[in-house]
Amino acid sequence: MKMEKRIEGALTAALGRAGQKGAPPQLAEAMRYAVFPGGARIRPKLCLAVAASCGDDDPKTATAAAIAIELLHCASLVHDDLPCFDDAATRRGKPSVHCAFGEPIAVLAGDAMIVLAFEVLSHRIAQAPERAAALLRIVSGSVGMPFGIVAGQAWESEPDAILADYQRAKTGSLFAAATETGAVAAGGDATLWRMLGERLGEAYQVADDIHDVVGSAAAMGKPTGQDASFNRPNAVMYHGLEGAVKHLKQLLHDAVESIPPSPGAATLRKLIESESKRFLPAELAQSAA
Amino acid sequence: MKMEKRIEGALTAALGRAGQKGAPPQLAEAMRYAVFPGGARIRPKLCLAVAASCGDDDPKTATAAAIAIELLHCASLVHDDLPCFDDAATRRGKPSVHCAFGEPIAVLAGDAMIVLAFEVLSHRIAQAPERAAALLRIVSGSVGMPFGIVAGQAWESEPDAILADYQRAKTGSLFAAATETGAVAAGGDATLWRMLGERLGEAYQVADDIHDVVGSAAAMGKPTGQDASFNRPNAVMYHGLEGAVKHLKQLLHDAVESIPPSPGAATLRKLIESESKRFLPAELAQSAA
Repeated sequence: MKMEKRIEGALTAALGRAGQKGAPPQLAEAMRYAVFPGGARIRPKLCLAVAASCGDDDPKTATAAAIAIELLHCASLVHDDLPCFDDAATRRGKPSVHCAFGEPIAVLAGDAMIVLAFEVLSHRIAQAPERAAALLRIVSGSVGMPFGIVAGQAWESEPDAILADYQRAKTGSLFAAATETGAVAAGGDATLWRMLGERLGEAYQVADDIHDVVGSAAAMGKPTGQDASFNRPNAVMYHGLEGAVKHLKQLLHDAVESIPPSPGAATLRKLIESESKRFLPAELAQSAA
Repeated sequence: MKMEKRIEGALTAALGRAGQKGAPPQLAEAMRYAVFPGGARIRPKLCLAVAASCGDDDPKTATAAAIAIELLHCASLVHDDLPCFDDAATRRGKPSVHCAFGEPIAVLAGDAMIVLAFEVLSHRIAQAPERAAALLRIVSGSVGMPFGIVAGQAWESEPDAILADYQRAKTGSLFAAATETGAVAAGGDATLWRMLGERLGEAYQVADDIHDVVGSAAAMGKPTGQDASFNRPNAVMYHGLEGAVKHLKQLLHDAVESIPPSPGAATLRKLIESESKRFLPAELAQSAA
């Protein structure tokens, strides 16, 4: 499919530049290992789908936004898996980066992927300064302090974290950035598309919480039962399993309803419906369908 | 002094935005702790001094470049001090960030400062798109893969690291970025100013190696004898103490000689001469003066 090719091709090119001759070989290899083979690539797909809905008049800028977001997502997984956080031995069905390459290279791989994401976006300034400025603002806000991914992760170290704030920062922010940047990269209005990303992000986090409670490590490709082990907020703990599944359904419904009228709205709705089927463990998927 | 005020003021403002109400408080505090009180601020001073030499016609852009570089430097110190790298208990005469706030917050503080550096630069795109594009390119190159700080740090994990490549990436790259961005921010030509940064960076690294061998932890505000403990390349090991001091003198000489003719050249030469006096332990300073 064209969208997947665009994403994988651009990621391959970016990592090729980063790991070119003369680069320290283990770090270059660890970055590739962290990005390939990918997970569902749901964030960059969402970004490109929104860009398509807005006319996709500057595909290179949209692709840059999509892969910047995926690089930042992969970076966050590498750092989250570190011994001082989740101490996860597996990710995407293979040893996590620090287990495969050691902790120093894992810390550096995360750092280098954050830098690479901004580098990729910076390359669009010359061609599209206004859009690039907005993209960099949205993306840095979604990852940094005070409300981005790192803030979300930091709430895990706070005794009085509020579930909604925590999830909004840790998962919602990058989903919101995916839809906002998709719009901006194609000359659309970010504010019209923010709610779609927010709701999907929240839905994804609730699904992840459900998986963590009822899923198996084999099916997830990463350890489960982590939230209880680390005493982390989890939607099933708050709402019960049935309540969490109901909440998830409502979020997905709200997400689809928030799509602004646009030529690509029907395609986008279909993409969300098909992708969101993967959100739940097989045994619960039917009840949420 | 005006230059110091500009740097401290802009750092305070950036960290204020990052740590605003609603941010996770420990991470916000750790970021401030990592940046204040600062070390010599040699990189941002160098950046502003070069900008001054080039006319400083856009002070806000020059200041953004200077503090972006300082934030990236501070981020690299926080990550370098982590248990998986240097496991340093002290930095700038106080407990290192992971000792004061724990390892999770230290990892996140480094990540958040990297993001903040790019955010600060991004804010200049609207006003100065061409300069901002060049600044982002230079800065991301100096920190990321294949030749920036993270690459330098990764060479420590490689069995066949070459001393010059390692030092060029780990220390030289950010010094070179300081002079290049200072020039670019003021409309100057980066290539004319690169050698000054490279030579100063190399000199600074040689001085650091000398300190690590003959300095005291109290005077340095951080542990010494680290290179031997970690079996890391060190210029004293390669050249002997006397040879290293001679090499340092030559590098500082070459640095000053490389300053292009410009209205501020004399001031810049004086700044380098006064700052570089701090490069050596007191007992060696005279022989290198």
